[in-house]
Amino acid sequence: MSLKEIPKKLVVIGGGYVGTELGTAFANFGTEVTFLEGAKDILGGFEKQMTQVVKKRLKKKGVTIVTEAVAKGVEETKDGVKVSYEAKGKEETLEADYVLVTVGRKPNTEEIGLEQVGIELDERGRVKTDKQCRTSVDNIYAIGDITAGPPLAHKASYEGKIAAEVISGEKSEVDYIGVPAVAFTEPELATVGLSEQEAKDKGFNVKVGKFPFAANGRALALNESDGFLKLITRKEDGLVLGGQIAGPNASDMISEIGLAVESGMTAEDIALTIHAHPTLGEITMEAAEVGLGKPVHML
Amino acid sequence: MSLKEIPKKLVVIGGGYVGTELGTAFANFGTEVTFLEGAKDILGGFEKQMTQVVKKRLKKKGVTIVTEAVAKGVEETKDGVKVSYEAKGKEETLEADYVLVTVGRKPNTEEIGLEQVGIELDERGRVKTDKQCRTSVDNIYAIGDITAGPPLAHKASYEGKIAAEVISGEKSEVDYIGVPAVAFTEPELATVGLSEQEAKDKGFNVKVGKFPFAANGRALALNESDGFLKLITRKEDGLVLGGQIAGPNASDMISEIGLAVESGMTAEDIALTIHAHPTLGEITMEAAEVGLGKPVHML
Ligand SMILES: Cc1cc2nc3c(=O)[nH]c(=O)nc-3n(C[C@H](O)[C@H](O)[C@H](O)COP(=O)(O)OP(=O)(O)OC[C@H]3O[C@@H](n4cnc5c(N)ncnc54)[C@H](O)[C@@H]3O)c2cc1C
Ligand SMILES: Cc1cc2nc3c(=O)[nH]c(=O)nc-3n(C[C@H](O)[C@H](O)[C@H](O)COP(=O)(O)OP(=O)(O)OC[C@H]3O[C@@H](n4cnc5c(N)ncnc54)[C@H](O)[C@@H]3O)c2cc1C
Repeated sequence: MSLKEIPKKLVVIGGGYVGTELGTAFANFGTEVTFLEGAKDILGGFEKQMTQVVKKRLKKKGVTIVTEAVAKGVEETKDGVKVSYEAKGKEETLEADYVLVTVGRKPNTEEIGLEQVGIELDERGRVKTDKQCRTSVDNIYAIGDITAGPPLAHKASYEGKIAAEVISGEKSEVDYIGVPAVAFTEPELATVGLSEQEAKDKGFNVKVGKFPFAANGRALALNESDGFLKLITRKEDGLVLGGQIAGPNASDMISEIGLAVESGMTAEDIALTIHAHPTLGEITMEAAEVGLGKPVHML
Repeated sequence: MSLKEIPKKLVVIGGGYVGTELGTAFANFGTEVTFLEGAKDILGGFEKQMTQVVKKRLKKKGVTIVTEAVAKGVEETKDGVKVSYEAKGKEETLEADYVLVTVGRKPNTEEIGLEQVGIELDERGRVKTDKQCRTSVDNIYAIGDITAGPPLAHKASYEGKIAAEVISGEKSEVDYIGVPAVAFTEPELATVGLSEQEAKDKGFNVKVGKFPFAANGRALALNESDGFLKLITRKEDGLVLGGQIAGPNASDMISEIGLAVESGMTAEDIALTIHAHPTLGEITMEAAEVGLGKPVHML
């Protein structure tokens, strides 16, 4: 069934960023949206603190989120669809005009003869590559979703550039210290480098600088004061390990933290950079100041 | 006369960022706006290439810009105001419902007894300070608009932080290498560090990386494809000297370049940082790649 009009009721299978972005768009059109998410929470990969900000907004839009719900099948009815799923050991069904399936992407490495040329795959069917994007066959390179790592466009194009450089004789290799991820939800979510938990798991002494959008003039002027920015630094010297943003234009703001992570900068480097007033960038500066124990606009 | 309703006709005296921001707001409300600007162009302080982008948009809104026009006086009429000005040696007049004066800010250093305590002023009536914000009287400090430099809020608060640190015994001093300036026009303008011309005037061998918003997916999705980003670097080693942005969310995007200028980073540092797709930050990365002679999405 193709989409001929804005549906009244929509079931979205999968609450990843793709499902949440598209589900939000339909909710904004007035559709009654239900998410079925197999995991404990939607937007896996982003911190709970961050997804909380998005879920609050989805709730306001009247969106229903059913977690730990595994879709089992879809049946076409006279007027639409009937989706069956399992939640807490029970079979349930949901009727809607349409169902949107946003799960199940996988690397397409079968049936293209990789084994014939001797290219090795990993246990998940992805092409094995080294730090120069070279496969197990010396003159064949692989990049993007069919290789290991996050299936994101900028990860793919970054690898594309490195592979091209290697092939043309440059001494390049990939470095995944600062791969960002962005969700165009409301508000936007963005992360780069390590989260607080990831940094702790790696054995770092972590110092977190957190600053709310509600204390920023530009956010208030945009009428977008939900959310926060977290700057993750190494306690000993303030080295920026990562950053997480839930808030308006998080997708624009994450670039600065990405550059800091990539270039080995410290919280002090960010705090001493004059950020224009009134801009959202002041939040990044103030989070760095919080991390340094010198907050200006927070107690 | 106070503003009781949206004016049909408004004369804005001064096409600086304050006048242009407010005039644009009124134009968006449907007011017929005329700018009277004494200089050769509006938005002095920003490059001609940048103001051009804003002027194109103002023209679409039906705004009239009269340059080299010096306001001489305002007279109240029965229905509004009559503004007289001199342009090309001729006296002209303009009738409107209201006039908005956005020029004439000056440091308020008279009549507050500065001479009594022995505080020295410069030839423009501004309080003289050293690199630690100390006035000519050892235990009196001054910051912000009454001192030299751009009369901007973030310059003032930066100096406030430095002065506070100095007073509390830290070895701080001001460094104006990366003071940004932002205009919340349509689209936004933002600059930090040196412009192309300023860098040349200072004797640098300059390499410019320029990239258009029109070649960026996120800008197209925002339906905001006017504008460009210029990254100014030192030819020999790619040191980032400054950046200028005319485009949507320029105010958010300038932070990354500010950090690069402040921390002595190179175009390569920016080009090697993975910028999320699809975001405006990719424009900064691609401008760096253009500067390095390795453009990906431009000929
Ligand atoms: C709905 C959706 C939204 C997304 N949003 C984002 C986002 O906001 N940001 C982000 O970073 N990423 C996003 N992604 C992920 C992003 O699209 C991928 O990470 C990216 O496209 C991977 O690039 P790639 O070149 O590895 O693979 P692809 O872009 O999938 O390109 C592979 C190409 O190879 C072709 N192909 C396959 N088999 C053969 C064959 N046998 N012969 C010839 N051609 C073949 C395919 O048709 C395809 O054109 C999204 C994905 C989806 C599905
Ligand atoms: C319309 C407009 C828009 C602006 N937009 C921006 C912008 O977007 N971004 C930006 O960076 N800057 C902007 N500015 C500039 C910014 O407001 C100033 O740079 C900033 O306020 C300077 O801070 P300051 O503390 O030096 O002075 P001020 O903010 O002017 O503070 C000085 C204070 O001292 C008080 N005072 C004066 N004399 C005495 C006295 N004798 N006794 C006691 N108190 C006294 C005044 O009343 C005032 O409250 C804008 C300015 C205007 C007018």
